[in-house]
Amino acid sequence: MQKVYLDHCATTPLDSRVLAVMIPYLTENYGNASSVHLFGQQARAAVDKARRQVASLIGGAAKEVVFTSGGTEANNLAIRGVCEAASHGRHIITSAIEHPSVRGPIEEFEKNGWDVTRLPVYEDGIVRVEDVGAAIRPDTVLISVMLANNEIGTIQPIAEIGAFVRETRGAGRKHLRFHTDAVQAGGRIPIDVEALGCDMLTLSAHKLYGPKGMGALFIRRGVRILAQQVGGHQERERRAGTESVANIVGFGAAAEFAKKEMNDRNEHVQGLRDRFESEIEKQIDNIVFNGKRDQRLPHVSNISFRFIEGEGLLIHLDLQGIAVSTGSACSSGTLEPSPVIRALGRNEELARGAIRFSFGKDNLDNDVDYVLEVLPRAVESLRNLSPLQREPVAI
Amino acid sequence: MQKVYLDHCATTPLDSRVLAVMIPYLTENYGNASSVHLFGQQARAAVDKARRQVASLIGGAAKEVVFTSGGTEANNLAIRGVCEAASHGRHIITSAIEHPSVRGPIEEFEKNGWDVTRLPVYEDGIVRVEDVGAAIRPDTVLISVMLANNEIGTIQPIAEIGAFVRETRGAGRKHLRFHTDAVQAGGRIPIDVEALGCDMLTLSAHKLYGPKGMGALFIRRGVRILAQQVGGHQERERRAGTESVANIVGFGAAAEFAKKEMNDRNEHVQGLRDRFESEIEKQIDNIVFNGKRDQRLPHVSNISFRFIEGEGLLIHLDLQGIAVSTGSACSSGTLEPSPVIRALGRNEELARGAIRFSFGKDNLDNDVDYVLEVLPRAVESLRNLSPLQREPVAI
Repeated sequence: MQKVYLDHCATTPLDSRVLAVMIPYLTENYGNASSVHLFGQQARAAVDKARRQVASLIGGAAKEVVFTSGGTEANNLAIRGVCEAASHGRHIITSAIEHPSVRGPIEEFEKNGWDVTRLPVYEDGIVRVEDVGAAIRPDTVLISVMLANNEIGTIQPIAEIGAFVRETRGAGRKHLRFHTDAVQAGGRIPIDVEALGCDMLTLSAHKLYGPKGMGALFIRRGVRILAQQVGGHQERERRAGTESVANIVGFGAAAEFAKKEMNDRNEHVQGLRDRFESEIEKQIDNIVFNGKRDQRLPHVSNISFRFIEGEGLLIHLDLQGIAVSTGSACSSGTLEPSPVIRALGRNEELARGAIRFSFGKDNLDNDVDYVLEVLPRAVESLRNLSPLQREPVAI
Repeated sequence: MQKVYLDHCATTPLDSRVLAVMIPYLTENYGNASSVHLFGQQARAAVDKARRQVASLIGGAAKEVVFTSGGTEANNLAIRGVCEAASHGRHIITSAIEHPSVRGPIEEFEKNGWDVTRLPVYEDGIVRVEDVGAAIRPDTVLISVMLANNEIGTIQPIAEIGAFVRETRGAGRKHLRFHTDAVQAGGRIPIDVEALGCDMLTLSAHKLYGPKGMGALFIRRGVRILAQQVGGHQERERRAGTESVANIVGFGAAAEFAKKEMNDRNEHVQGLRDRFESEIEKQIDNIVFNGKRDQRLPHVSNISFRFIEGEGLLIHLDLQGIAVSTGSACSSGTLEPSPVIRALGRNEELARGAIRFSFGKDNLDNDVDYVLEVLPRAVESLRNLSPLQREPVAI
């Protein structure tokens, strides 16, 4: 049976060239990067190089990059690190469609009495800068809005928000901090932390063909942040723990490849995605595309299929070798319909019927052909079985 | 030049057999273990197997193992997770020779007004159970004493402390929790969480020939702990974040090899270590062995060389291809003499002159020969240069 992986937002295959760069650090170069001797110095040099590579992907300085165990840790560090260090207020602004690893720590502050403003994203899945402006208060400590959404791929106006934050800061609110979760955007679209105007930015290696268990938080020079993992001098006192050298090296290499190959990869995946979408539109009725179609990551397609459960369709496709997703992998295990799709104003039926197809650099035209062969029939047979279906309705 | 790595307490080489087990998860089996589809299920099954392997190394149940990004995260989670969940007091008991990743979070609680009792270790580097008894108070929340020390290798009477904690708990202090940091002991000496009577136990993969960036916290069933990394359902809600599948698989394999080969490895490293020590005793005067010699990990030797700086000796040896350590790698970058050696009652000169030699399963007799050839001359030449040397004194 043909296998087609269309879940690149959940995780990507490790690039074989990246693995090749990692192998020496999984074999002979095994030193602890904090050791003084030659074995340690080799590891240290490799970590330093990777730090420059990751910084280069986002236009930051190497010293501004803190390696973490992944995007979740980096998001936790950004939010807690800034909010715990703040003394001028207890208010956070965020969007209604953040990843659970941003939502989670913010909800903890909320339970402890902080105010949280959750910006709407409207039917197109996009935050409005004017809403940010309206939400800012003298006691606002942190704004955290993702760069691109993990379920529908919508790209948020981070540079505009960043410019607004800079103005606000200039007008006397100098402690206001701005974080963006770029886990899905990293390596997919050009990122320049200067242009974005963010104080902190989260990346994850395994979303850009690097290893799992590795991420980074960009922390702009001068931004005060409390370390969350403590008990060691690593990462300039911002994150204790023996450096995961091979994973760091892999992250660096993956970042460099992503930067070099971004245009080619995007042309490729967008071609696949667009062909997929235009064919699906022709072949399947009663579907709704989620997220503003011309302001999305080029590899993501999120479609609600009316009258059926996304979970059922996912399983149906899986049995035929096609891997897709409902919601985020970090939310799996819950029975709730996706809060991201709900935030678009979709009803529960549409939220439950949503499927994310996310394409990757190694997908082939042939993969799309196969999905186009399987998916319409799968939808039809599920709709025939579905108790949800009363009568087809044009929408 | 011959290279001899004698710093296995800082980190160990990844076992090539472990890497072989990891490779499929760094290539074709790249699924996110939280994904529902087949790619995810493959990853999930691999994670589950590794969890059983790690549990088996310590006599725990698989459900009691939480994978973390390393020993530091696991120690942080144990201490904060229990203390933040506690409501009956604000007192912690620990030893004077804990690793920085235990000391660090405890110092944070201390800054926030908690009382901390640090148990002495006496000249032999061993905690006394009666001191634990004397320190326990009605408001004691946590006892954290390491299983084996990372600098001098001394093995602490954890089973005796555990038995005492159980008694105390039976006598009405049911919320008292007992954690042991077994990062250095894991895979080196037999560990059975039942026999030890601990509620939590920390392991690190890269200390037992597994990958860096991977650890685990054993959390006994029923022990209430607050998750520290949040925003995802992974690890049964105790640690959010995409599973680092390849590293987890490697940890599992390394744990299984360590369990199977423990006796052989120990016989080998103890043979090397003991020959090294007896020769050094003959060839170099004015040295002091640190840590009770018959209650140490079999691969560790910590020696203070009078009249010289350990740092200078380390560099001298490094230039001749021999990798050793002063203090812990997690403390490197500080200029303070080792607090562990100081806790033995040694003066500053002896603390500054301390070197840790830690042997590994792949060291050869030939490695010891080389060190025995280089080390006495290195010590002699440094002593000849040293302003510390007044006149040799018998001690």
